Amino acid sequence: MRTVYVNGEFVAEDEAKVSIFDRGFLFADSVYEVTSVLDGKLIDFAGHCRRLRRSLRELQMTLRVSDEELLDIHRHLVEKNEIEEGLIYMQVTRGAADRDFAFPPEDTPATLVLFTQIKGLLDSPLAARGQKIFTVEDQRWGRCDIKTVQLLFPSLAKMESKSKGGDDAWLVRDGLVTEGSSNNAYIVLDNGTIVTRDLSNLILHGITRRAVLECARHLQMKVEERPFTIEEAKDAVEAFSTSASGFVCPVIEIDGTTIGSGEPGPVASKLREVYITEMRKAAI
Amino acid sequence: MRTVYVNGEFVAEDEAKVSIFDRGFLFADSVYEVTSVLDGKLIDFAGHCRRLRRSLRELQMTLRVSDEELLDIHRHLVEKNEIEEGLIYMQVTRGAADRDFAFPPEDTPATLVLFTQIKGLLDSPLAARGQKIFTVEDQRWGRCDIKTVQLLFPSLAKMESKSKGGDDAWLVRDGLVTEGSSNNAYIVLDNGTIVTRDLSNLILHGITRRAVLECARHLQMKVEERPFTIEEAKDAVEAFSTSASGFVCPVIEIDGTTIGSGEPGPVASKLREVYITEMRKAAI
Repeated sequence: MRTVYVNGEFVAEDEAKVSIFDRGFLFADSVYEVTSVLDGKLIDFAGHCRRLRRSLRELQMTLRVSDEELLDIHRHLVEKNEIEEGLIYMQVTRGAADRDFAFPPEDTPATLVLFTQIKGLLDSPLAARGQKIFTVEDQRWGRCDIKTVQLLFPSLAKMESKSKGGDDAWLVRDGLVTEGSSNNAYIVLDNGTIVTRDLSNLILHGITRRAVLECARHLQMKVEERPFTIEEAKDAVEAFSTSASGFVCPVIEIDGTTIGSGEPGPVASKLREVYITEMRKAAI
Repeated sequence: MRTVYVNGEFVAEDEAKVSIFDRGFLFADSVYEVTSVLDGKLIDFAGHCRRLRRSLRELQMTLRVSDEELLDIHRHLVEKNEIEEGLIYMQVTRGAADRDFAFPPEDTPATLVLFTQIKGLLDSPLAARGQKIFTVEDQRWGRCDIKTVQLLFPSLAKMESKSKGGDDAWLVRDGLVTEGSSNNAYIVLDNGTIVTRDLSNLILHGITRRAVLECARHLQMKVEERPFTIEEAKDAVEAFSTSASGFVCPVIEIDGTTIGSGEPGPVASKLREVYITEMRKAAI
């Protein structure tokens, strides 16, 4: 039985509840972060805190809990639930109030929820085999840069891919790949250049994306941040995705077309290795 | 203290909670309906049930509670909370399961939540005065025809309008009005024709919209279901919105431009009167 955190208290997971009047439940008026744990330590916690604060700011949401306190809660959960490898999920909502599209009074306390998931991240069978991707028309809202819980479409897209035998979906808007269902998307051209969508309101500003691109530049790999088409992806020598829980995860097939050799490629493998090494060193 | 309904039980509102693992909370994987109550009776309950079933079907969500049982729950809440005039809110989620973008096993029970709100609907000061509207670029997802709880954007749009002194927002996509933040949008041309956006994935298929258009046709009013621009709206002789809780509600100003005489117009007033009369007759 996990211990989880709900509004100032550590409780057993089956007692962890929020009001039905919580705006996270009624309006998806809520943002979240997922931080990975390796060796019992937090990966890029500062990056997740920064993005959480940005999401809150964009939605004029106030959380009266400091980053230091958030760190304490994360660490307490890691210890309590004995997480050597896994995830910590953190969600903030605008709080509970009688249902109204208008925001509740400003002094309405935000809801803060955290829970852990034990999960093997380093020794990933999916990363070893490589993902099969199906593309889906991106029908999400216009502010995908804010990490809200409006995740119904990514969930539907993932299910659509699974129904065809795929592992995940890449989303396509106006003929151009935006990102994966819960990760950023990359291709490697035959001249070795890594291409990934440039930051805008249409994609999540991945914490892992940022760190992996930094690794790539350190490794003297050429990076182009720009949109790419599915046709370009199918012609690529490699493809991969990045996310907090998947790190760097190779893609070997897109819409039934084999990418490159059909096996995880050297660029993705190298980046995965270097990213993990660097992140473990910096973990707190 | 209200009595509310949560998963088979009638409980006090401050005890009404759902698991933090509920997919309504974590993924906005959830749909809802709001039914009005007049004279202690339900307005167009069959219409709301039909739309709920459609929303569930579109999302492959299963609710093992029949329409008859839903009616019983509605009626019990009306009686228990002594609702003569007000709203009943009903929400269904895909249920609680450990967090995963993939759907949980099919036998995961849906979460069903209902609560009431006492609210004066007939004697509406806003309908008497007429609404001031500001337009906002429509940034919602591509399936606005499914009544999901992904309501963050409509909430933000309403707040943006309020910050400018408005009552509500009309959303505009590609230069054409889609609908209001939580209602359908209409204009009346100087030849008397009522224009409202045609049904598609871009707008909610309003239960009240359907009934009001039927009233209009009975009254020999001409109706055109097609997109219209903000410029056309500003040149209109009248404008109004329809929703389950607002019935027919006149609009007197759009982006600072007075519509028609600047007072609620005869078409909106007539439709409001006839709609209310007909609905009270048919209420159950």
